[in-house]
Amino acid sequence: MTIWYGGDYNPEQWPRAIWDDDMRLMNRAGISLATVGVFSWARLEPRPGEYDFGWLDELLDLLHANGVRVDLATATASPPPWLAREHPETLPVTEDGVRLSVGSRQQYCPSSPVYRDRARELVRRVVDRYADHPAIELWHVNNEYGCHVSHCYCDVSAEAFRGWLRAKYGQIDELNRVWGTAFWSQRYDSFDEVSPPRAAPTFRNPTQLLDFDRFSNDELLACYRAEVEVIRARSPIPITTNFMGFFKAVDYWAWAREVDIVSDDTYPDPADPESPAYAAMVRDLMRSLGGGAPWLLMEQAPSAVNWRRRNAVKSPGQMRAWSYQSVARGADGILFFQWRQSVAGSEKFHSGLVPHSGTDTRLWREVEQLGQELAALSARTGDAAITGTRVPSTVAITLDWDSWWAIEQPASPADVSYVRTLFAWHRALTSLGLAVDFVRSDADLSGYRLVVAPAHFAASDAQVANLASFAETGTLVVGFGTAITDENLHVRLGGYLGEPLRSALGVWIEEFAPPAAPDLQNLGIGTPPPLALAGEAFGGAATGTVWAEFLRVEDAEILATFTEGALGGWPVVTRRATGAGAGWYVATLPEPDALRRLAERVALEAGIDLPAPAATGEQVETVRRGGSLFVINHGEEDAELVVEGTDALTGAPAAGMRLAPQGVAIIYPTSGTSG
Amino acid sequence: MTIWYGGDYNPEQWPRAIWDDDMRLMNRAGISLATVGVFSWARLEPRPGEYDFGWLDELLDLLHANGVRVDLATATASPPPWLAREHPETLPVTEDGVRLSVGSRQQYCPSSPVYRDRARELVRRVVDRYADHPAIELWHVNNEYGCHVSHCYCDVSAEAFRGWLRAKYGQIDELNRVWGTAFWSQRYDSFDEVSPPRAAPTFRNPTQLLDFDRFSNDELLACYRAEVEVIRARSPIPITTNFMGFFKAVDYWAWAREVDIVSDDTYPDPADPESPAYAAMVRDLMRSLGGGAPWLLMEQAPSAVNWRRRNAVKSPGQMRAWSYQSVARGADGILFFQWRQSVAGSEKFHSGLVPHSGTDTRLWREVEQLGQELAALSARTGDAAITGTRVPSTVAITLDWDSWWAIEQPASPADVSYVRTLFAWHRALTSLGLAVDFVRSDADLSGYRLVVAPAHFAASDAQVANLASFAETGTLVVGFGTAITDENLHVRLGGYLGEPLRSALGVWIEEFAPPAAPDLQNLGIGTPPPLALAGEAFGGAATGTVWAEFLRVEDAEILATFTEGALGGWPVVTRRATGAGAGWYVATLPEPDALRRLAERVALEAGIDLPAPAATGEQVETVRRGGSLFVINHGEEDAELVVEGTDALTGAPAAGMRLAPQGVAIIYPTSGTSG
Amino acid sequence: MTIWYGGDYNPEQWPRAIWDDDMRLMNRAGISLATVGVFSWARLEPRPGEYDFGWLDELLDLLHANGVRVDLATATASPPPWLAREHPETLPVTEDGVRLSVGSRQQYCPSSPVYRDRARELVRRVVDRYADHPAIELWHVNNEYGCHVSHCYCDVSAEAFRGWLRAKYGQIDELNRVWGTAFWSQRYDSFDEVSPPRAAPTFRNPTQLLDFDRFSNDELLACYRAEVEVIRARSPIPITTNFMGFFKAVDYWAWAREVDIVSDDTYPDPADPESPAYAAMVRDLMRSLGGGAPWLLMEQAPSAVNWRRRNAVKSPGQMRAWSYQSVARGADGILFFQWRQSVAGSEKFHSGLVPHSGTDTRLWREVEQLGQELAALSARTGDAAITGTRVPSTVAITLDWDSWWAIEQPASPADVSYVRTLFAWHRALTSLGLAVDFVRSDADLSGYRLVVAPAHFAASDAQVANLASFAETGTLVVGFGTAITDENLHVRLGGYLGEPLRSALGVWIEEFAPPAAPDLQNLGIGTPPPLALAGEAFGGAATGTVWAEFLRVEDAEILATFTEGALGGWPVVTRRATGAGAGWYVATLPEPDALRRLAERVALEAGIDLPAPAATGEQVETVRRGGSLFVINHGEEDAELVVEGTDALTGAPAAGMRLAPQGVAIIYPTSGTSG
Repeated sequence: MTIWYGGDYNPEQWPRAIWDDDMRLMNRAGISLATVGVFSWARLEPRPGEYDFGWLDELLDLLHANGVRVDLATATASPPPWLAREHPETLPVTEDGVRLSVGSRQQYCPSSPVYRDRARELVRRVVDRYADHPAIELWHVNNEYGCHVSHCYCDVSAEAFRGWLRAKYGQIDELNRVWGTAFWSQRYDSFDEVSPPRAAPTFRNPTQLLDFDRFSNDELLACYRAEVEVIRARSPIPITTNFMGFFKAVDYWAWAREVDIVSDDTYPDPADPESPAYAAMVRDLMRSLGGGAPWLLMEQAPSAVNWRRRNAVKSPGQMRAWSYQSVARGADGILFFQWRQSVAGSEKFHSGLVPHSGTDTRLWREVEQLGQELAALSARTGDAAITGTRVPSTVAITLDWDSWWAIEQPASPADVSYVRTLFAWHRALTSLGLAVDFVRSDADLSGYRLVVAPAHFAASDAQVANLASFAETGTLVVGFGTAITDENLHVRLGGYLGEPLRSALGVWIEEFAPPAAPDLQNLGIGTPPPLALAGEAFGGAATGTVWAEFLRVEDAEILATFTEGALGGWPVVTRRATGAGAGWYVATLPEPDALRRLAERVALEAGIDLPAPAATGEQVETVRRGGSLFVINHGEEDAELVVEGTDALTGAPAAGMRLAPQGVAIIYPTSGTSG
Repeated sequence: MTIWYGGDYNPEQWPRAIWDDDMRLMNRAGISLATVGVFSWARLEPRPGEYDFGWLDELLDLLHANGVRVDLATATASPPPWLAREHPETLPVTEDGVRLSVGSRQQYCPSSPVYRDRARELVRRVVDRYADHPAIELWHVNNEYGCHVSHCYCDVSAEAFRGWLRAKYGQIDELNRVWGTAFWSQRYDSFDEVSPPRAAPTFRNPTQLLDFDRFSNDELLACYRAEVEVIRARSPIPITTNFMGFFKAVDYWAWAREVDIVSDDTYPDPADPESPAYAAMVRDLMRSLGGGAPWLLMEQAPSAVNWRRRNAVKSPGQMRAWSYQSVARGADGILFFQWRQSVAGSEKFHSGLVPHSGTDTRLWREVEQLGQELAALSARTGDAAITGTRVPSTVAITLDWDSWWAIEQPASPADVSYVRTLFAWHRALTSLGLAVDFVRSDADLSGYRLVVAPAHFAASDAQVANLASFAETGTLVVGFGTAITDENLHVRLGGYLGEPLRSALGVWIEEFAPPAAPDLQNLGIGTPPPLALAGEAFGGAATGTVWAEFLRVEDAEILATFTEGALGGWPVVTRRATGAGAGWYVATLPEPDALRRLAERVALEAGIDLPAPAATGEQVETVRRGGSLFVINHGEEDAELVVEGTDALTGAPAAGMRLAPQGVAIIYPTSGTSG
Repeated sequence: MTIWYGGDYNPEQWPRAIWDDDMRLMNRAGISLATVGVFSWARLEPRPGEYDFGWLDELLDLLHANGVRVDLATATASPPPWLAREHPETLPVTEDGVRLSVGSRQQYCPSSPVYRDRARELVRRVVDRYADHPAIELWHVNNEYGCHVSHCYCDVSAEAFRGWLRAKYGQIDELNRVWGTAFWSQRYDSFDEVSPPRAAPTFRNPTQLLDFDRFSNDELLACYRAEVEVIRARSPIPITTNFMGFFKAVDYWAWAREVDIVSDDTYPDPADPESPAYAAMVRDLMRSLGGGAPWLLMEQAPSAVNWRRRNAVKSPGQMRAWSYQSVARGADGILFFQWRQSVAGSEKFHSGLVPHSGTDTRLWREVEQLGQELAALSARTGDAAITGTRVPSTVAITLDWDSWWAIEQPASPADVSYVRTLFAWHRALTSLGLAVDFVRSDADLSGYRLVVAPAHFAASDAQVANLASFAETGTLVVGFGTAITDENLHVRLGGYLGEPLRSALGVWIEEFAPPAAPDLQNLGIGTPPPLALAGEAFGGAATGTVWAEFLRVEDAEILATFTEGALGGWPVVTRRATGAGAGWYVATLPEPDALRRLAERVALEAGIDLPAPAATGEQVETVRRGGSLFVINHGEEDAELVVEGTDALTGAPAAGMRLAPQGVAIIYPTSGTSG
């Protein structure tokens, strides 16, 4: 099986003569898959109802003739300017009432029936024309749904939101109950009185906000489904749409059920030393969304992006190393945005596989090298196979978009970042060499030995029960911020957490006490000092940040306490052993070193074997996929391998191999078969 | 007399069964007063003209039966959503033209005749129904006027503003003269051309801004008066509306004349070490607004609030200590927002007297303890009485909303914070053990020995004369920024200050010279270094911030000078002795230590006895009210009392008593009578 | 010839009695020129079509009688409120759709035909009435065009923009090609679909933005031209409009061609130690805009301004020193905003020549002193003359507004400040005692020995050729960021720079690599550390900021390299010698000391004599104008002159003279003639 290699290909930005050069270079680089047509609507339908497919016919034939498979976009990601002129009501509106204009991209209201009709009609034309084209490998629906416009506050959206609420609540009194409108005189007498959470004098109704997040996700998903329906009716070829890693506005659990293969766009910042760890988490999410199945890295940058304030280049080897990180964590395709760096437009300074400066460049040489390597790896089969294989894991972290939306609402005890909280746990666990999945908190958890549920703020009864039930046979770690409310943002009274989770953990929360800094007269706020902690959970002293609470223990061991101030002596880490399992509770966010020590302690108690290090060196990432062990050196010093086996990239024996910075080895047992 | 104890009670957010539990717990805690109905409009009038009072009938009967008195709200603070649907023009509009939506609270234009009519009609119904109910102790009009929407820029407001201007100026030429519209071609040919100070290309007309501040305050006050008129016509029960401490948008001097008792909502930040001192200033304002009469602490938080970025809890004892600070400074009631912590809505993480976690909590135990103590103190009479007594003072600081609005306008010499300037003086004086009142600068000052007038920017001729006149018999301290303009923001030419104040001080100002930091190309600005000062006024060297000027002395002693740079050698503190009085001038904001030394020097010269310390310790607050001396330890170390007498809380002898952090003692002469 | 002395005079803000006092004081101060009527529209035309010139008749007669010449404004800078009431569509609109209100100034859409008609009619009346008035020296058109409203996004502007685009592109397909609308599905089917770059979901089309910048500049210029046309038809008196230094929105090269004399408003921040150097650059720009001809300093502040957050005063002597800086760098007039400090309005805290505090003030004494000195200097003739003389220069820096607009667009490799980059070079060169001109990159450069082209981002073929051609005979220094794109923002492929410039320099750019700091999850960004450099170009080690790149050398010497990280060993400064010239390339922004060393090296190689220092001291500015050498001490210590000659201000011998801080000497050869 092939590890796809390629990227977005937008030849409509270039003269025809360049296309032949593209084919030549694609072959040199071993390009096997090109994403075509993502932003071609205005070219395909230059005026309403008038279509021009000639150039695309020619392009697909050319790619096919050159052995490049096509991920064909439905081209609906950005409507042409004529749509805004004919139907200004399709333009999206901000919560302040600003109607956004043409001239960038994605300027449509997701609820607009006019937009949806036009998009569907375009898809019908595209699919009718190309469903049987031999080059098509994959359908690419739209692009990065919600990237710029995830929530629209226009009148059309308002009407759609009311319809969504009617369908959800049936009676207005049920909405009033769930939204808690007895508070602040917000009671609605009819659905007609409800609007999106537009700019208001002060904090808006939390459940209204949450429902609007859900509605907005549903509306985007409805756009996606409308296109998929057209495709499925005509073509059996698999369908995807490109996700964007941890993207707050879109609940990818719901979407992942409806794509045939998960694909992802991820742009870690080369200037940030945390990027390899953060990107690892993103890869694990993509694998998890597909239930462990291989996924596609649909977009990454060959080198710099263009949209940060200052855009760092990838250092030599970094593009390759990060590509292998994706493969190691389950990707069966390494694609880029974009093939040829643009000559004009807002992304002209986004790097391309063919840079402005041409092919006598380090970047291009790395592109060719990686293409050759991936082709060779694709050929491996049996125990040595990489494509199609899985990344086994016994550890999971819960992830729920509802809780993300909820915990980051204003008017909360403290400004908790949901993703930073998950990242802290993910990094601690992966630094131990463990493979980590993400799961919904209401998923079947029985395949795991250890489940961490951090900041799972808005937990339904079913979720609470599911977690508590897991603690009977596995090791459950509940982090602060969990099950504070139900799914309607109604507080779980009587100590939070809710039954049966509260009993499973043997603790309840008397009062939240997040660290804070002076905020007199709203003149600004500083960063509060870290909280002092100590106890066997950390093997000694430690520090915490972000959160604290007065925790009451009913039936649990105290494994660490706060040690200073009003919190001094109060528990911070507890553990309640059950028959075969255990329920841990952690009432703060330990700083990285402390969290790693805690994670190690928890993993050992969960009966998980911690793998021996594969190499010396501090920043070496190790991941087992199928029969292969991927070792990637993200550090600035050489690392030395200490495992046995053979490196699939070089054929050399592993033990004693030195990995330079950005170096990669793919070790398989020496008995493995090279295909 | 009773020290009221209680808070906002919103049982409409809870099932009926909870109400009985509320009564039981209120009795346990000694709750004597409940504020009811503040946000009940949508419940009382679920659709236009249709009223539902049944639940409120039952509630008031229940409270009455349980001996809890009621502060009954007029429920007009937040209109129901149906009002916005029927009359979208009642929704307020920002200066950028954004019309604010329903879904939070206070979404009404204060000038809206529709809102006012509807509100008045609701009040009529409420008062008709409950004026004779035996539970009613107090009428609570609306809630925190202007908290979120103090200025509305809609067309209805614009028309009202024009009417206000016509009434004030009569002829457009008079408006032109006062607003100085000869500048920047702003001359109006008719009132019809005038609008609120909406978003404009650059700095808006200063007097237009100031008049719009005055207008906006007047419109809110008109809303209040409209409700009061309805109540007075039917009921003799006292009326209040809850103030918000130093709240810029609302001129509480004007309002205080129209309430029967001053009440205040104050939420000091427990994370800020300045909070006790700042809160002390707020309490003194409330006492001063009522002319020294007892006032009500209408709202404080039992522990954390919910609206800061990170919300600190009150540490053990802090709620009690800050409650006593209010009593010490004149409060005859300690009330909270709110009774039972909400289960939903934007304030669910605002603490309540009955917390989410129930009554087996430190918070609830402190609530019970304070209730018992206040009940005991309420029973004291005669010399030992607390309720109804006053806090005698011979020192006052002037406070005028016009100057607040004016000095914080843009396009000023420097960005002076009016309240921070007053706070600096208040803290310096109270740290000496002095009781400090706030007064209008045109008030009768004859009862004081020392009056400080800082940053009194926009001073009318009458105010200037009143201050100057005081200096003939008392000690007047004029701080920088005073009498720079008249009440129309016309500069007082010829050296500022204006006659006769300039002569009373014997100085005039050649040029302002505030410290500044580089601002090249508007690329940002830093904090300028402090200014070096020295002189006997400070007992040596000192530093100043915020402001400086080239001060010319005609007839005064120079008691301190600037010592560096272009200002070096120029006077910074001067004093002109008169017959029985003196006029001081201070041309900078001395840093806290320096200002305390200066304040001590001034107080001594004013013939004021500085009280001996009541206790050891740096952060002990001491206040005398009636025959009692309140001693509160805000520090983190124990303090030891050094006064004679008996502690009313424990009955123990005062001398030698140790006060733990957050500890409180109420010392009365041993001969005092316990009621 | 006279060195004009005076400023804005707005007596309509004052009672008539003050006018006589003004005349008396103007005579005392030697005022020779008054700018009148800048914001008088509402006074001159109090209602539509009704004019009132009586007060202006009287004023001009009075000034004439007192020997004060008049710079008469057309009074169109700010329309009266009645225009907004009659024609609300004349009010400008922001990119977010906010229509700005009356009440400040400049509230007009530059494209509004109604505004233009009304303005033209007013100018006609003014010119008809005063063209033959004997007091008029100069016509002052409007005021600070674009200061607050340079870009308007209203529907009228949109229609005008479409007209401008039609005229530029003819066919919509040409616009599509130039704007690169094949990217992001932006293809326009008709000009009717195009709008200004209003708020949009994400980055707007770069060429649309650039064209809108050009259009906006053109619209303002059209306003100017419309007024000039009316004046020219009636009056031969010279015309100016006041520029604002380096003002991004207005391309002064285009405007300078259409004024009879360049005039400038500049307000350096006295709190910023960089101000003298920055102001020197501004003066040089003004001289350059007029092709070396004398210019007018139309506005400066006598002391503090009012619009910064904190407004520093000018220290004693600073106003005088900075005035002489202007004269030294080519000004033949020193004017101020404004004559008499306002008593009301938004600029009442902007200093005036007659301060609030009157004439017994340091400020007024400095005003009188400077007036006397300038009068004496005006009388000098022959070799000793100052007025009318030039500042010879052999060094130039290129400046192009297109590149300024382009390089500061978002979605660029790094956030480069165009002016800060030019400033770095200007300061390095002037610190060597060199006189520096600014030139367009397509100007005739043959008069220079050294031309620096930094950050010349959007370079047309003609500009590229012009620079390359200069390198054949002179020394060309190209800084990073140059010729990355053409004038349409299409990237110059194949290594950037473009031919023949690339060949002239012997280098090409493989990839940009600006220093960056972590930006994970857009949670904020820090400042990246400086880049290490070394090489003979700097005489050793050095540091760079802002930018870096992987530079490829084809035919040049490498004179310095990066020394650390992935860039280590890559060239940073290169030099390619040609027959009589040389082409240097600099791939970073060296920090000030390093850049000064580099500039010295370059200047020496260009055969430029570096003048010997005229004085000891670090912050002494030296400029030669005509036969005189101006020496100004901006430091905080005395400086000692080491040149021979006579000081024109004191008549003293120069050598050995001590210049106190802010001191000025004007040295002429002893044989010079005093007129």
